[in-house]
Amino acid sequence: MTRRLAVVLLSGGLDSATTAAIAQHAGFTVCALSVRYGQRHAIELAAATRVADSLGITRRLVLDVDLRPVGGSALTSDVPVPRDRPVEAMGGDIPSTYVPARNTILLSLALAWAETLGARDIFIGANALDYSGYPDCRPEYLRAFEAMARLATRAGVEGAGVTIHAPLLELSKPLIVQRGIELGVDYGLTVSCYDPAPDGAACGHCDACQLRRRGFELAGRPDPTRYQAEPGLRPA
Amino acid sequence: MTRRLAVVLLSGGLDSATTAAIAQHAGFTVCALSVRYGQRHAIELAAATRVADSLGITRRLVLDVDLRPVGGSALTSDVPVPRDRPVEAMGGDIPSTYVPARNTILLSLALAWAETLGARDIFIGANALDYSGYPDCRPEYLRAFEAMARLATRAGVEGAGVTIHAPLLELSKPLIVQRGIELGVDYGLTVSCYDPAPDGAACGHCDACQLRRRGFELAGRPDPTRYQAEPGLRPA
Repeated sequence: MTRRLAVVLLSGGLDSATTAAIAQHAGFTVCALSVRYGQRHAIELAAATRVADSLGITRRLVLDVDLRPVGGSALTSDVPVPRDRPVEAMGGDIPSTYVPARNTILLSLALAWAETLGARDIFIGANALDYSGYPDCRPEYLRAFEAMARLATRAGVEGAGVTIHAPLLELSKPLIVQRGIELGVDYGLTVSCYDPAPDGAACGHCDACQLRRRGFELAGRPDPTRYQAEPGLRPA
Repeated sequence: MTRRLAVVLLSGGLDSATTAAIAQHAGFTVCALSVRYGQRHAIELAAATRVADSLGITRRLVLDVDLRPVGGSALTSDVPVPRDRPVEAMGGDIPSTYVPARNTILLSLALAWAETLGARDIFIGANALDYSGYPDCRPEYLRAFEAMARLATRAGVEGAGVTIHAPLLELSKPLIVQRGIELGVDYGLTVSCYDPAPDGAACGHCDACQLRRRGFELAGRPDPTRYQAEPGLRPA
C-alpha cells in the first residue's frame, strides 16, 4: 500500500517538529514546507533543515514571501519582541508578535504545494491553548479555512477536499513535549525563540522561550534548549 | 467624511484595472496590491504601475512570493501557454494556465495588508464567466474565503469581518470593457497576455488575448492592445 502524502508546515520550532512526527506516526509520507517570510528568526529555517534530516523527510520545499513591507508585527519589523511577560497573561490579548494573516498565508502556500503533489492532507502546528490570543489559531478559523480549501483547488472541483490537521490544537505545551519525546523528536534541534542570538542561542525572555521552558518543566523533562549565557537563565 | 480604504488586487490586466476603477467609483480610497509570483508576465507589473498612476492611486504595495518552485502551472514554469483555443471551449476544463491556489494566496496577502491598514474591504477581479474553468473564480469559493477571512484576523476577533468584493464575477468581457470605458479606464495601459514579447506586445493567441480581443469586438470598441507584428493579428 502506498503511503499518502501530507504537506506539513515545518518552521523548525518545537510545535511543528512534533506535528511532523505525529503525521509520520499516522502513516503519512511527510512533505515539509518551510516559509521564509522575513521573520527575525531566520535561524528557525536552519532548524527546520536539521529536524527534517533527523526525521528522514526527503521531500522539502522552502518558499519565500517577504511580509516585511506589510508590517504590523514585531516578527517582521524592528518593533521589539516583548520580554518577560507572565505566561498566565499570554492568552488575554493579541501580542505584537502576531503576524497579520500569517497562518492564512502559510496554509495557502501549503494548499498550492498539496495541489501540485496530489496530497489531500495538510498539517499545521497551531495551538489554541498557548496562543489563544492569535485569531488564526482558533478551531473555528481552521475549520473555515478547510471549508474554503475544499472549494479552492482542482480537487475541490472534482468533489475531493483537503483536510487541515492541527493535532496540537488542544494540547498544552507539556503534553506536546511528552508526545514528541515518545515519538523520538530531538528537541535539541529545534528553535522556538522569537529573538535568538546570531549563533542561534535562545533569549529565554520572549513568550516562545517562556512557554517552551515551562513546557519542559511541567513535563518533567530536561530542556535541551541552548540559552544565551546569563545568570539565572540556565535550563532547570 | 473619511473615505474608507479598500485593498484592490491590481495585476495590470484589464479585469483588475476595471475593478480598481469600480472600487474608486464606489467611494473607496484604493490601496493597490500587486504580487510578483514568478509569473511569466512580469510585464504586467509595469502595467500595474501605469494603471495605478492613471487612476491616481498613491498607496501601493508590491509583494514577492515566488511560486515557481511549487510548479503545476504554465504561468510559473516552462510549460507552453496554450495557443488558439476556441473561446467557446475555455470554460470546460481547468487550463494549464491555472496556478494552484493562486487566488487563495493573493487574497491572503491582501488580507494581511488590509489588517495592517485597518481596511475592511478587499476587491478582486475574479470572473466566473470567462474563467469558469478556474476553481478559485467560483462564487461559492469567494464566499468561503470571506467566511474564513472573517475569523482570521484581529478584526474577526472583535466581531468585525472583512468583505471580499468581486464586482466582475458575473460580467461578460464586453460588459467589463463597457463599464471600464464609462469609468475612464485607459485600457491601452493594461496588459492581459499570458505570453507577451519582451517589449510588452501581446501574443494574440493565448486564452487571455483571445478573450480580451473578443471583449472589445463584442463591446463595439476599438482594442488599444499592442499585438506582436504578425499578419492577420491586428486588432479589428
